[in-house]
Amino acid sequence: MILTLTLNPAIDLTYALPALTLGTSHRVPQAQQRAGGKGVNVARVLTEQGYRTRAMAPVGGTTGAQFRADLDRAGIDHQLLPVQEPTRRTITLVTPEHTTPLNEAGQSPTATELDQLLQATAAALAGARVLVCSGSVPAGAPADLIPSVIALARAAGVPVIVDTSGPALLAAVESGADVLKPNQDELREIAGPAEPSVAARSLAERSGGAVFASLGAGGMLATTAAGPIWHARLPQPLSGNPTGAGDAAVAAIAVGLARHGSTLEGDSLPQTLRTATAWSAAAVLTPTAGSIADPAPLTEQIIIDRVAEPANPEESR
Amino acid sequence: MILTLTLNPAIDLTYALPALTLGTSHRVPQAQQRAGGKGVNVARVLTEQGYRTRAMAPVGGTTGAQFRADLDRAGIDHQLLPVQEPTRRTITLVTPEHTTPLNEAGQSPTATELDQLLQATAAALAGARVLVCSGSVPAGAPADLIPSVIALARAAGVPVIVDTSGPALLAAVESGADVLKPNQDELREIAGPAEPSVAARSLAERSGGAVFASLGAGGMLATTAAGPIWHARLPQPLSGNPTGAGDAAVAAIAVGLARHGSTLEGDSLPQTLRTATAWSAAAVLTPTAGSIADPAPLTEQIIIDRVAEPANPEESR
Repeated sequence: MILTLTLNPAIDLTYALPALTLGTSHRVPQAQQRAGGKGVNVARVLTEQGYRTRAMAPVGGTTGAQFRADLDRAGIDHQLLPVQEPTRRTITLVTPEHTTPLNEAGQSPTATELDQLLQATAAALAGARVLVCSGSVPAGAPADLIPSVIALARAAGVPVIVDTSGPALLAAVESGADVLKPNQDELREIAGPAEPSVAARSLAERSGGAVFASLGAGGMLATTAAGPIWHARLPQPLSGNPTGAGDAAVAAIAVGLARHGSTLEGDSLPQTLRTATAWSAAAVLTPTAGSIADPAPLTEQIIIDRVAEPANPEESR
Repeated sequence: MILTLTLNPAIDLTYALPALTLGTSHRVPQAQQRAGGKGVNVARVLTEQGYRTRAMAPVGGTTGAQFRADLDRAGIDHQLLPVQEPTRRTITLVTPEHTTPLNEAGQSPTATELDQLLQATAAALAGARVLVCSGSVPAGAPADLIPSVIALARAAGVPVIVDTSGPALLAAVESGADVLKPNQDELREIAGPAEPSVAARSLAERSGGAVFASLGAGGMLATTAAGPIWHARLPQPLSGNPTGAGDAAVAAIAVGLARHGSTLEGDSLPQTLRTATAWSAAAVLTPTAGSIADPAPLTEQIIIDRVAEPANPEESR
């Protein structure tokens, strides 16, 4: 079973409009409403692809009830911890020209509730082969929340993938997450304006784990501190909706980890990169996050290259 | 007791942002969430001003539960009919430059549920002095819904104010609502591009009742088919948030009807116009719909004039 932990879940409301003009009133169809948060999207893709998964999250209020009802409706196995704070909302306004997300920050559960969540996670890890910790951390959460989650997984002997950004990503790097999955913006934020391959390698050296860096239409990189840097891409870029492409990649990486064990080394790294790039591309071909097209034909098309090693500044002195 | 009937209630979510740029992602604070729909705003103003009122509406789903909880929290007496269809949402995006409402259309309750709603309305009318039927009609509702509501009020001997737009407003005109409260756009939509005073008088002739036409910063007109046309305004226009100003005016008109009886004739028409204009202005001075500033000092400032009668096309032949 692949356990996904969503620390900052949301009810996602999506409005599709023919056009959006600021300062004028719009009559809109009913929102598409779904349980969201990146960990939930990962669980959704895994469920759809037939893998055993469980979505863990703190939920509260009537929006929390909506969240629970949507997971039930979608047939996603879940373990939801009731908390006081209402589950946040995200609103996405989609026109033919623009996609405009408005994401509520979300408020942290209390210290007691977080303890309960971590205890429940520790118990669930006993039956898990991989832990995925995806998405943002709610406002006001303690700085050691991500390190605590990684420590729980390590204590249980379960590899952990962390897909987050900002200070939480930095904490995951320093706590040695087994796999990180930054996108280009997150890579730049944490490693500065280097070449993506240089930045990814540097992140792998700092974390000691594997790094999958998604480059949008530019494909995906994968590397560890020691081995080669791999680059995967399609022969030609796809057009579609990139929302959820990163979550589909994380789902594929989780399957790879469950299959190959916690150390994605040797052939298992480019193999997992191939699947992750294909699932990510398959997500671009569907309009909603958490659902992907058949990845099989895409998997065959993926082109994988070794990237020239970045020059070692120590050696070039 | 003033009974308000909201046929198309909503959960109103308001997001305040420093700026809104289409096509980019925004981190936003939690939405302000309130039970909405124009009839609810009327009940909110009446409750705040100390008048006995009851808000009647069909509600469903988890959004319906949010709606009920908000009325409880606000201390607004209510009678809510549970229906299958989830209560709709409205989203309002407020920046310093623009206010951009996104209003879900709302789906009609079933025929059986509408029958139950009308029966409950008929029963509640026994204890009511005025019925206010405010706001839009949900998509798919029968064309005779507004006429049925007016007929119920007439059967109970209770005067009815209708504040709606489009085909529902036309139905209210033809069914002889005691009071109509169109704004400038609604007046133009139903009476063509005439002067507002001409259009309001024509509407009063067609309905046989009183017409209060709100003209935004231009004040308000009131007329019946026979008497003078009155115009009320402040010495200088106010700046503020016009959302809910029309609902505050309707609340004041309802109080006037309850006080003076169903026929606002003679002095009672300009007296009620004065209060309605003051309450409307007091709503502009507060940031949220359903709440108004102290209307007393504004009431004294209102300037009331008789408008020159529109030329009678019959006589000028």
